[in-house]
Order: sequence, then C-alpha cells, then structure tokens
Amino acid sequence: MSKSRNKTHNKKLGQIPGSIIYTGKKASHKLFIEAFDYNKDQYIEKELLAVEESFEFKLTNSTTWINLNGLNHVNDIEKLGNHYNLHPLVLEDIVNIAQRPKIDEYEDYLFVVLKMLYYDENNNITTEQVSFVLGKNYVLSFQESDGDVFDTVRDRIRQAKGRVRNMHADYLLYILIDAIVDYYFSIIEVLGDKIEDFETAIFNGKITDDVSKDIQDLKREILKVRRAIFPLREVISRIEKHESPLIQKKTKTFYRDIFDHLIQVSENIDIYREMIWSLMDMYMTTISNKMNEVMKVLTIMASIFIPLTFIAGIYGMNFEYIPELKYKYSYFILWGVMVLLFIGMLFYFKRKKWL
Amino acid sequence: MSKSRNKTHNKKLGQIPGSIIYTGKKASHKLFIEAFDYNKDQYIEKELLAVEESFEFKLTNSTTWINLNGLNHVNDIEKLGNHYNLHPLVLEDIVNIAQRPKIDEYEDYLFVVLKMLYYDENNNITTEQVSFVLGKNYVLSFQESDGDVFDTVRDRIRQAKGRVRNMHADYLLYILIDAIVDYYFSIIEVLGDKIEDFETAIFNGKITDDVSKDIQDLKREILKVRRAIFPLREVISRIEKHESPLIQKKTKTFYRDIFDHLIQVSENIDIYREMIWSLMDMYMTTISNKMNEVMKVLTIMASIFIPLTFIAGIYGMNFEYIPELKYKYSYFILWGVMVLLFIGMLFYFKRKKWL
Amino acid sequence: MSKSRNKTHNKKLGQIPGSIIYTGKKASHKLFIEAFDYNKDQYIEKELLAVEESFEFKLTNSTTWINLNGLNHVNDIEKLGNHYNLHPLVLEDIVNIAQRPKIDEYEDYLFVVLKMLYYDENNNITTEQVSFVLGKNYVLSFQESDGDVFDTVRDRIRQAKGRVRNMHADYLLYILIDAIVDYYFSIIEVLGDKIEDFETAIFNGKITDDVSKDIQDLKREILKVRRAIFPLREVISRIEKHESPLIQKKTKTFYRDIFDHLIQVSENIDIYREMIWSLMDMYMTTISNKMNEVMKVLTIMASIFIPLTFIAGIYGMNFEYIPELKYKYSYFILWGVMVLLFIGMLFYFKRKKWL
Amino acid sequence: MSKSRNKTHNKKLGQIPGSIIYTGKKASHKLFIEAFDYNKDQYIEKELLAVEESFEFKLTNSTTWINLNGLNHVNDIEKLGNHYNLHPLVLEDIVNIAQRPKIDEYEDYLFVVLKMLYYDENNNITTEQVSFVLGKNYVLSFQESDGDVFDTVRDRIRQAKGRVRNMHADYLLYILIDAIVDYYFSIIEVLGDKIEDFETAIFNGKITDDVSKDIQDLKREILKVRRAIFPLREVISRIEKHESPLIQKKTKTFYRDIFDHLIQVSENIDIYREMIWSLMDMYMTTISNKMNEVMKVLTIMASIFIPLTFIAGIYGMNFEYIPELKYKYSYFILWGVMVLLFIGMLFYFKRKKWL
Amino acid sequence: MSKSRNKTHNKKLGQIPGSIIYTGKKASHKLFIEAFDYNKDQYIEKELLAVEESFEFKLTNSTTWINLNGLNHVNDIEKLGNHYNLHPLVLEDIVNIAQRPKIDEYEDYLFVVLKMLYYDENNNITTEQVSFVLGKNYVLSFQESDGDVFDTVRDRIRQAKGRVRNMHADYLLYILIDAIVDYYFSIIEVLGDKIEDFETAIFNGKITDDVSKDIQDLKREILKVRRAIFPLREVISRIEKHESPLIQKKTKTFYRDIFDHLIQVSENIDIYREMIWSLMDMYMTTISNKMNEVMKVLTIMASIFIPLTFIAGIYGMNFEYIPELKYKYSYFILWGVMVLLFIGMLFYFKRKKWL
Repeated sequence: MSKSRNKTHNKKLGQIPGSIIYTGKKASHKLFIEAFDYNKDQYIEKELLAVEESFEFKLTNSTTWINLNGLNHVNDIEKLGNHYNLHPLVLEDIVNIAQRPKIDEYEDYLFVVLKMLYYDENNNITTEQVSFVLGKNYVLSFQESDGDVFDTVRDRIRQAKGRVRNMHADYLLYILIDAIVDYYFSIIEVLGDKIEDFETAIFNGKITDDVSKDIQDLKREILKVRRAIFPLREVISRIEKHESPLIQKKTKTFYRDIFDHLIQVSENIDIYREMIWSLMDMYMTTISNKMNEVMKVLTIMASIFIPLTFIAGIYGMNFEYIPELKYKYSYFILWGVMVLLFIGMLFYFKRKKWL
Repeated sequence: MSKSRNKTHNKKLGQIPGSIIYTGKKASHKLFIEAFDYNKDQYIEKELLAVEESFEFKLTNSTTWINLNGLNHVNDIEKLGNHYNLHPLVLEDIVNIAQRPKIDEYEDYLFVVLKMLYYDENNNITTEQVSFVLGKNYVLSFQESDGDVFDTVRDRIRQAKGRVRNMHADYLLYILIDAIVDYYFSIIEVLGDKIEDFETAIFNGKITDDVSKDIQDLKREILKVRRAIFPLREVISRIEKHESPLIQKKTKTFYRDIFDHLIQVSENIDIYREMIWSLMDMYMTTISNKMNEVMKVLTIMASIFIPLTFIAGIYGMNFEYIPELKYKYSYFILWGVMVLLFIGMLFYFKRKKWL
Repeated sequence: MSKSRNKTHNKKLGQIPGSIIYTGKKASHKLFIEAFDYNKDQYIEKELLAVEESFEFKLTNSTTWINLNGLNHVNDIEKLGNHYNLHPLVLEDIVNIAQRPKIDEYEDYLFVVLKMLYYDENNNITTEQVSFVLGKNYVLSFQESDGDVFDTVRDRIRQAKGRVRNMHADYLLYILIDAIVDYYFSIIEVLGDKIEDFETAIFNGKITDDVSKDIQDLKREILKVRRAIFPLREVISRIEKHESPLIQKKTKTFYRDIFDHLIQVSENIDIYREMIWSLMDMYMTTISNKMNEVMKVLTIMASIFIPLTFIAGIYGMNFEYIPELKYKYSYFILWGVMVLLFIGMLFYFKRKKWL
Repeated sequence: MSKSRNKTHNKKLGQIPGSIIYTGKKASHKLFIEAFDYNKDQYIEKELLAVEESFEFKLTNSTTWINLNGLNHVNDIEKLGNHYNLHPLVLEDIVNIAQRPKIDEYEDYLFVVLKMLYYDENNNITTEQVSFVLGKNYVLSFQESDGDVFDTVRDRIRQAKGRVRNMHADYLLYILIDAIVDYYFSIIEVLGDKIEDFETAIFNGKITDDVSKDIQDLKREILKVRRAIFPLREVISRIEKHESPLIQKKTKTFYRDIFDHLIQVSENIDIYREMIWSLMDMYMTTISNKMNEVMKVLTIMASIFIPLTFIAGIYGMNFEYIPELKYKYSYFILWGVMVLLFIGMLFYFKRKKWL
Repeated sequence: MSKSRNKTHNKKLGQIPGSIIYTGKKASHKLFIEAFDYNKDQYIEKELLAVEESFEFKLTNSTTWINLNGLNHVNDIEKLGNHYNLHPLVLEDIVNIAQRPKIDEYEDYLFVVLKMLYYDENNNITTEQVSFVLGKNYVLSFQESDGDVFDTVRDRIRQAKGRVRNMHADYLLYILIDAIVDYYFSIIEVLGDKIEDFETAIFNGKITDDVSKDIQDLKREILKVRRAIFPLREVISRIEKHESPLIQKKTKTFYRDIFDHLIQVSENIDIYREMIWSLMDMYMTTISNKMNEVMKVLTIMASIFIPLTFIAGIYGMNFEYIPELKYKYSYFILWGVMVLLFIGMLFYFKRKKWL
C-alpha cells in the first residue's frame, strides 16, 4: 500500500512544484459533476456536462454545492479552480491523492483535505481522498471516483430535512464531513469484530501458520486507519477555532460535535491497537503451551519405555552364566517388576500434573 | 463491548445530525422522574408521573434537582430539554450512550457527561452514562436505568446533613459527581484484588490454559475503566477553572478535591495496567520453567538408560567368538559397571543442579 | 498494598464530603503533641498533654512548630484545625492517609502533604503520610505514629545549629521537608543494592523459581516509591514559585535545592526501573540458555548411543545366515567400528561447539 | 556508520572552535563551482574556475545562485564566506559534515543545513550534507561532491519553466530544498519495498540465519533516514515562520507545502519503523513454529517405535521358560498387536492435530 | 555505581543543609590551584601555593581563570568562595559530587555544574564533576582531581590562538565547556564501537554465557552517559537565553554551537540505546536458532535409527517359528530394506530443509 502510494508520488518526481498532476490509479474515470444550489425556499439539482456550466452558480446568493468526481480530469479541475481563484498549490493538492488530512487557510476560502474510508469488494479497507473548498456561499468537493457517503446529504437538501436549508455553506461543509466521519464508526466496528474473532480463534487453538501474517496485516490496517483519522482531529479543531466570516459562531458547536466523534474513534483505534499487540503475545503463549504439551508426551513415553527396554536388553544378553535365566518364574517375576515400574512412572507423572 | 458500542452508534448512521435517538439496549425501560426542591429551611421530594410536572420548579428560587431514569423516553427528554432551552446537540448527546466524559459550556448552563461504573450480576464491569445539566438554580440528571449511587445525596438533602442545604446548585452537582467518583475506588479495588489473585495463581503454578485469555480480559477491563475515568479529569479541571456565575468560587475547592481523587484513581489504574503487562511476562516465564523441567526429566532418563541399553545390546549379539560371554563372572562384572555408570550419571546431574 | 489502601478509602464510602475520618490502621495510637517556639535568642520545647495547650503559641511573634503524632485522634486535630482556621477539606485530607503528595494554597496558609518512606521490620518499604500547614509564623505537622526523621531538626533548634534560629517558619518547613527527602536517598540506595544482587544472582545462575515473583515484587516497590516521590517534585516547584509573604525570596533558593535532590532521586528511580525490566529479560535468557544446555546433553547422548545400539541390535538378530557372525574377529572389528563412530561423533559435536 | 561519523568528528578534537576543517572522507575531490544569475528576462550560467570569479555577481540586482562542490577546498570556501560576510561558525559548519539539519538565523542571511539522501552503488542509503546560505538576492549552496538532485532546478532556470524566473532568492531556495525532499520519497519507497520483501520471505519460511542481522541493518537504515529527515521539519517550520524581508509572505505558502511533504515522509518512516519491530516478532514466531514442528516429528517417531522396540526386546530375552516363545503363531499374533498399536498411535496423534 | 554514589550522599545524611562536605572518594588528593590572568596584550600564568594568592586577581580588569583541583580541601574552597561572595549552597554543591548538571543563576554570578566523562584504566566510563562560577571578569573552575581536557584552552591563552584573548570571561567559559563537550564525542564513539562489536559477535555466534551480562553493563553505561549529558542541554540553552551583562550577545552564538553539539551527542546516545535493546532481541533469536539446530540433529538421529533398531529388535526375538529367520537371504534383504528406509528418511528431511 505505502509502496504504491509512494510510486504514485514518483510520477511527480522532478516536476515543477505547482504542476497539477493526478497521482492516482483511476486514470480512465469518467468525469461527473453535479451542482446543488439552494436557499430556505427552493433548491436546484443539476448534473453538469461541462465544468463551465457551474460558473453561473457563483453569482447567486444562495448556497451552492458543486461536487466533482474524477480527479484524472485535471483540465476541468483547473478551469474550475481558476474560476474560483484557487491557489495553484490547492489544485495540485486536490489531484495528488497522497495528501494527509489537512486544512489550509486562504484569504477568502478554506481548503480541507480528508480521507473517506470504506471496505472494497475484497473486504480490505480502502481510502479515497476527498477535498473541500469552502467559500463565502459555496462548497466545492472533489472525489476520485463515483460512489460516496453523501446520499443522506443530498436527500436532506432535496427534502429540506433538518436545518440544512436554513443554514449556510459552513453548515453544508459540516454535514458533508459528518457523513464521512460517521462512516468511520462502521469501519472500526468491523476492525473490532476481526480482533475479537482472532482472540477467539487463538484461544480455541484454531490457529494456522498464517496467524502471524494475519496479525501483521491487521496491524497495518490499523495504521492505515490511524493515519487517515488522527490528523483530521487537528483539522476539525482548527475549523472550530477559525476566526473569519466563513465559519459562523453557531456552526462551531456542530464542528465541536464532529471533534468529539473523532476523539471517540481515535480512542477506539488506540484500544484496538493495544489489543492487537496483545494478540501476538497470546499467540506466542499458545505456541509455547503447545510445545510444552508435545514435550510432555515425548518425555512420558520415553521415560516409561526406555528403562523397561533396558531391562529386556539385560536378559537378552548371551552370557553363559546368568543365573536368573534358569529360574522357571523369572519371566513372570520380571513382568511383575515391569508393570510395577510402569505404574510407578504413571503415578510420578500424575503427581507432576503432566497427565 | 466495543463492538456492541459501535453497533449502537450505527443505529444513527445516516441520520440527520441533531436527531435525538436513544442508542442503548434498555429500550423498554419504564420512565422514572423524581424532583427535589430545597433551600436552607425546607425541601420537597416528589416522584413525577409526567415530565410536565417538573416545569413548576423552574420558577422557584430554591435549588432544584430533577433526576430522570430511562433514556429510551426520548420524547419526554425532548420536552424537558425544550423547557430548559437545551441545545439540540445536548439532547442528542444525552440519549446517545456512546459519549466520552466531556463538558460543554453553553451560555446559561453547563452540560456534563460522565460514566457510572459498577459490577453487574456476572461480576463484569458495566458502564452507564449519566448526564448532568447545571443551570443557575437547578441540576438535571439523566440516567439510562434505575439504580444509582445517589442515595447518600438524597439522604443528605432530606436530613439536611452536611452543608448541602446551605449551598447552591453547583454544590449539588459536586456531591452528585463525588458520589460517582467515590464509587470508582471500589471498582479499582476489585481490579487490584483480581490482579493479586492472578499473581498468586501464576506464582503457585495453578494455571490453566485460559490464563492468557483471562489476562487479555483483564487488560480490556482496565482499558474500559481508563476510558471512563481519564477524560473526566479534564472535565473536572475545566469546571474548576470555569469563569461564570454558575460555579461559585468557594465551591471550586470542592471540585479540586474531586480532581485529587481522580488523580489517585488514575494513578492506581496505571499501576495496575503495568502490573497486568508484567503478569504476561511472569506467565511466559512460568511456561518456560515448566518446559525446562520436562526437558530435564527426559534428558536424565535418556542419558542414563540409553548407554546402559547399548551395553546390554553388545552382549546380546550373536557372534560366535565373544570372549567375555564365556567368563563365569562377566555378568556380575557387567552389572557392577552399569551400577557405577548409573551412579556417575546421577552425580553428574547432581553437580549440574538438575536433580 | 493498593488493596488495603483502597479498603481504607472505603471506610469513607458514602460519607458526607468533608467528614473528618481517619482511614489508617493505627487506630489505637496514643496522642503525642510537642511544641517548639523559638527566635534568634531563645527557644521553648514542650510536650503537650492536651491540644489546647498549644493555643498560646499562636499569639507569640516567635516561630512555632507544633508536631502531632496520632491521626486517629480526629477530635484533637479538629480542635487544632479550628483554632488555626483550617478549611474542613484540609482536616479531612490530614487524616485520610490515602493522599497523594500535594500542595493546596489557601489565603493565609499553605497545606502540604507528603510521604515519609522507611523500611519496616520485615525490610519492606513503608510509606507514612506527613502533612504540614505553614502559616505566617508557625508550622503544624501531622504524623500517623511516633518515630520520624526529624531528630536533626530538633537538635538544630535546641542547639541553634545552622541558620534555623535566625530564619522564619518557611525555613523551618524547608528543613523538615529536607530531612524527609534526604531519607529517600537511603531508600533508593537499598533498592539499588537489591537490583544489583538480583543481577549477580541471575548471572551466576543462582536462581530459584521465585525469581519472577521477586522481580514482580521489586517492580511494585519501585512503583510505590515513584508514587510517593514523583508528585512531590511539582509540590516543591510550586512552593518555590509561590508568590506570597509566606515564602521569603531568600528561602526559595533552599527549596530549589530540595527540588534538585528530588530530580536526582527521580532519575535514579527511573534508571532502576529500566534495569528491573531488563532483569526479566536477563532471566528469560538465562532460562533459555539452560534449556539449550539440557537439550545439548540429551542430543549428544542420544546421537552417540542410538546408532551404536542399532549396530548391536543388528548382530543380535537370529537369522540363520549372517556371515559376519562366523568370522572369528568380527566382534573385535565391530568394537573398532563403534569406537571410530564414537570418536567421529565427539569430533562432530566439538566442531559444533557443543562440547 | 555512526562510528565513522564520530571518527570524522575527532579530526577536530582539540581544535580551536571556529577552525574550518573538513571532516569528510572525500579529501581529494576536485573543486567545482557554478553560478547562475537571472531575472525575469535573462539568465547567465557559468562554470567558475576560481572562487573569486563569483564576486562580481554580488553586485547585481538579479538573483544569484552559486553552487560549490568539494568541501575539502576549505580555503576557497573561506574566501567565498568572507566575501559574503559569513560568521566563522557558519564556515565551520559547512565543512563539518557531521551537522544535524538546522537553521541559524543571522542578521542579513539565513544558514540552512540539510541532508541529501541517495542509494550508493552497493544499494546502501548514503547521506550527503548540503548547506545553503540565503541572502537578500543570492543563494549559496555547498555540497561534498558532484552529482545532485538539482538538475530540474537548473532546467527550470534555463528554460524559464514554472515561476522561478519571476520570483526571488527565497523561491530559489524553496525549489532547491523541494528537489531534495522530493527525493526522500523514493528513498522511503525502497525501504517500504525491502520491508515487504522481508515480510513475504519470513512468511514463506524462506529465512536464513542472517535474517536477524538483516532486520538489524534495516533498523539502522530507518534510524539514519529519521535522523536526516525529522529535524528538517522544524527547520522548514522556522523558515515559514521567519519574520524578515528575506522570506516573502507569498513564498511561505510554498514552504508550508514542503512541510506537508516532510510530515508525510515522517509518518511513513514511523509506520515502517513499527513494522520492522513487528518483523522481529514474526520472525521469532516463525522460529518457534519451526521448533514446534521439529519436536512433533521427534515425538511421533519416538512415541511410536519406543514401545514397539520394548515389545521386541521382551521376546529377545533368553529366559528358559517364556511360554509365548513356543506357540507356533505367537510371532504373527505379535505382529498384529504391533500393527494395532501403531495404528492406535497414529490415530491418537491425528486427533491431537499433530499430523 | 549508583550504589556508591548514594553511599557518598549518605555521608551527609542528617547534616545541616548548607554544610560543606566533600562526598567523593579521593579524600587524600593534593590541592592544586592555578591562575590565568589575561587581556588582549598580555597574560600571567601562575601555580598558587595557597588560595589566598588568588585574591589579588579579583581586583584586575583583565579576565581571570582560577582552576582548583582537589575537592577534599573544603576549607580552601570555602575561603575562595567567601572571597567571591558565593552562596553557601553553591559551596555545598561544588564539593558534593552527586550533582546533576545544572545552572543556578545568582545576582552577580552564574554557577554551572557539569560532568567530565573519560575512560579510566579499566576502560570503564568514569564521570568527574566539574563546577564553574562565571563572574563579571573571572571564571572559577573546581575539579575533583588532576588531569583534565583543558590543555587546549591553556595553550590558546598562552599563545593567543583563536579569539580567546580578545574576548571576555563568558567566552572563556564557553571554550572550557566546549572542551568537555568535544570529549563526549570520543566517549560515544567508543560506545558505538562496542555495540558494533557485539553485533558482529552475536551474528557470528561467538557468544558466551556472559553476553546478557555484558549487554546489561552496556545498558548501564549508556544510562550513565545519558544522565551526564542530557541535563546539560537545558543548562546550555539557559545560558544562551540568559539575560544579564554576564553573557554578551555575540558570545551566545557560540553557546548555540555547543547546544547543537549536545543535540548531536544526545541523538547518537538514543540511537545506541535503541540498538542495545535490539541486541538483546538478536541474542534471543540466536539462542532460539541454536536450540532449533540442536533439536534438528536430535530429531534426525532419533527418527532414522529408532525404527531401524526396532526392525533389528524384531529379528532378535527368540520365537521358535519366525519363518524369515530360515531363509538364506533374509539378512541381506533386511539390509536392503534398512538402507532404503535410511535413504527415504534422509530424503524426507532434505525436503523439510533440515539438512
């Protein structure tokens, strides 16, 4: 993962800083742009065929949300960016999917990058970069590909559910981020389930040789999720503390709420992390216990039969004068001795709790 | 645990932020509301049949405590909240039991969430969320279900014990939180006992295969308790530093006292945590020691009897010319040699401290 | 330890905050009160039969030290406290021996709690709580039982040694705390010796099965000492920075000196702590090394004699046609082969460095 | 590595502070100096034969970049330094290659030291110290030897690509540092690949005895990279916050971008570091698993054949009266018994999941 | 070490604070005092026979350095201290060699304590306390015994090398401290070499049973060096930030340089520390690998010969009717079977990669 990520970065090696180059792998994604424009009383929803169609919304007083899917269409993004006076580094960051969650404060807009997390078809955690630009009365959002967690947001705008239609762009940004953060909970829930399954498996001894590999994979997933979520806390905290007309005072309470959620998620991640490290310990202990058991079987078998075999060996010797060999009942006496030895041994191991 | 917790969160996934939805499992709990209204000279105690009955107390100058059990009754909570002008996010947090201990400061009230810890019937640590709203002359408290640690508080109000009846709502909140924090001490005392029992068990070798599972469970309990208690320190510290008429200067000394108690509890938790990690080490050492002992038995038995068996094998060979076989005393000489070898071996192992 | 500590706390569970209840175990201790009153020119030393006898000293301009042993006498402590206008929470903290070292700053006095450490008759580290109240021209000290480290202080007052008689109450508090902190050095010196003894023992293989238990005990002692000493650093640092006529500027240099000593002790504790954790590693390695040695002995014995026994077995077979059996020198040739095999094996193990 | 580094330091032991002494190993490197002088409209590129040739550029108003390769030529560096009024300690630091990345702020210039990382011919990570002096309208750069990552920078100046020709010396310094930081990404990408290869190798059991040595080497490489990169974050952050005419406000956005990149690299390094530590655990587990397997084979073989051999031994005894020996079918019955025992054993081990 | 250190402290237990008592072990050291007095144009160097001879230098305007070796001569130190108006606690700290590196700021002088590190004749790291008092135009230095790292400083004063003769006492203190810090580099270089030697030894399997003891010793050396060097960083940083005429602005750049060196040394120490901890892991792995190898040899030998011995045992039985015994070629057939079994086994172990 990190590997491919770095590889994508390398596409840019030696480029002029500020070059707008898409670093992801979905190079053939179709461009999709949608626009919402709403106020208390009405709303417009429109799929746009060209980025230029969105320009008209800039002039309205109503709140505008322009959502663009397909970061490979750098030209369209550049057009949009220039129309909204975005800094070249902002455009560069939008299409460079190796960003860390961050916030950059510019004079008349805020630029926020974060990570959408979801499980792909192979049940691996995938991260997708989402960038937001919050202006005076608009929010621009940029996603790598179709499919997102914003359907509830769209519904709310359409049906004027909740307070979204009464509020401004800063509240729109809030519910968009909130939708992403809410989804983090399901991600870590699945992680928690996996850890519990492992614990049960290790405890029941249903372990294969892959366990240590699997635990390593789990560690890496946790690290991936951590990396996507932890920096976001500071981002949200800075939005909350941001002093500008872009974020209204009454909206800050809501950002504080996202912050609380992120702290909850972070805490869970740290707990899971600690538990994964413990898993390895449990696994080591299980291995040691198994080896102990194997050793005990070997020791019991060897300790019982080696002395008996020695005794049998004694009377298999061919000396001419071995008095015992002549006595009629020696054989039976010997059996008796051996049975006694056998029982004695069993008794000894019983006392040592090996049986 | 974390799992179910997250599942409860999921009930809310895709909901409008600010929706007041109970996320706990006690959905069929009966509503119970009680009200205390008191001043220096008199007090009223009343069980309320409907939330509306509590509204009258808002007008009095005396201190009012309204305690509501049953977070599933979201409508009643909403009514109460609206009457006291609580922010929708506060109501949402009251019924969402996945909160972390926190304090939110609003213009004319403080909102405090914390966790009550107790042992359930299976002797597992259970957390229950308790929310407080502290206003100018009232305290609202919200609990998930009946049964709490507030009986001493009720007694004190009734019998005018201590200084509660002479003080204001901020002091009432203090003794309520103090009752919860005091109970933490018994929780961690039991944890301490469990750890000591484990230590004794491991040291005495009375260990079963479940030990590593049990230690893992103990770790998780500690993490649970930590998560409930640690953030509370900051909450109390912020109450102590809070600059508003809600918290009087002379009451702050008392909050400082709670803070000291929390530091004590936290310190103990950290010590227990460190000791649990050591337990695993002790357990590993015990396993290794046991394996060592098993190996020694095997080695002693094999080292003694394998050479003897070889000697016996020699004279069991059927060569026609083995001179020793003819001598009359060879058999007895051989026994002598074997006994010497046996004693030599014992001596050798004795010197190596294996016996 | 922690257990009993919590148990003592529990005595108070459900009590009104501010109740003055002794939580220690020395409930039948006799009350002992002594008073020193001195200035540059003269001093009075007096054992008091009742707490009321101390009241007269409050009026003098000279420096007064009242030392009370026996925290179980809560009534006397309350009387003294009321006479000196101490806050009820201060009195509660004096007799609740579960305090953490702390400083509470009140308007006209400082309240300092710390821990005296000493070895009891069983050579276990014991902590005893000592509380100080520093007023304008007096120091009150409260100890659980007789026997303390203040004899040098008493001598200095009596004999006007050092500068004590020329200085004020803040300097008296300094030499009292200094006496306690000086004693910490001997405590950690003994700890250091214990660790070194363990190291030597483990290194020399003189280890018993109790080692891991002993190391665990040592860890706990370190944690106990840490808990007593570490918070004191902040206490002293706050005295040094305290802005009030209670602490004179020229005395602060001396508190700075105590602070330096505490940093030294803390550093040693942290080093010891790290070394104890290493001890466990050393011990594990020792166990592994021992098992290795055991395994080598077994492997050498088995590898040498099992093949030889096989050869002997071959010629113990009863086939009618085994040509070798008829040759006159086969037996001796076989011995030769076996000796060669034996030497070869020894050589092989020598080369592998197992012998 | 650290060793040689210290050795190079020792060359200076006992020297007067401020002595300008080259501490690297490339003592015979040829001096190479190049100069770029450009403004919006034109540029000059020139290889200089003597350091004095560069002095003329100081007078121009255009932006000058003087790049010197060959730190062993201390005299030339001193001449250059004196011409630009550099502090003696700056000159000392330029040629002492044991510097940590740092920034020193002088009155009319900034001195920045950082590390260029690349893979040498043996595929080991090598660090080379690069120093920059940023003045009002010039940048001086000092490298130990030829070969650098600045070719894109040169191209951009020549071809007026990007905005470099329109900007000032502070932007030139930015693209120089950016070129170095961009290269860090390829370094850590290779590290990531190595770690993944190790994981795969360990998981597939393709491990040699050198693995623990190799992991140790990997740890050291990570530490080396960390040491080169981590302090740079603070350096860049201080440039960004630097208040002087040397760094223009609009350039700071670009330094912020480098800072973001460094945070990304640092995060990856920390993740790799954690994964390397896990590798060791995985390796230990693999070893334990292997030993377990070895033990199982031994135990199965011994447990099956030792009892059988004992039975055969019994009937190899030479007692005169062993009734079984006379029965015609005993031999075949015995075979049957042995086969049954054998099958029973197999069944037993099957049930224990050892087969 | 720590032990003896504490023991030395104990000499003081129960003493009046401020008592000037030497706590080191070199009680019979001869007193040695030397004085340098210099300005730009001339210098005086003089060995003093009595401390009083130094008093005259106090009156001069030139810079004076008085160096005293032999902390056991407390009376002379006291005389000197009183002449220079040093605080009694300063005198106490000078002769109490258990100090931590620290700086105490007094009204008209700075008191700096630090540790000189060197290897003693047994190649163990030894620390010696050096104290400096920096006054307006003088530096006093106090060492425990003869032999120091200040020869370069003396030479520079004598020969007017570098800028020392043009600068003031603050610069003199700088070059004295710089000489000590420079020497730290050789100390940690030797440490680095030791670690590398260990790594090579462990990797090559040239390990003795003392390895874990040696690693433990190495850990302790690192801790010792850390304790001497780490606090010094803060000391130097406080000198650099010190606002008083004692430290001139232009000298601060030089102290900043020492600070940079200390950061370098500290970083190396932390890296070495991490590597030592890894060493223990490597060692454990090596032990495990060795045990694995031992186990394999045992398993191969036993698995091959135990079944063969069983077969031989079969035909050593004395049953009257064993048909195979009569066939002429059974013996040779049996040999064939055994050889096949043997080869099969070898093949099996080869495939398992045990051979």
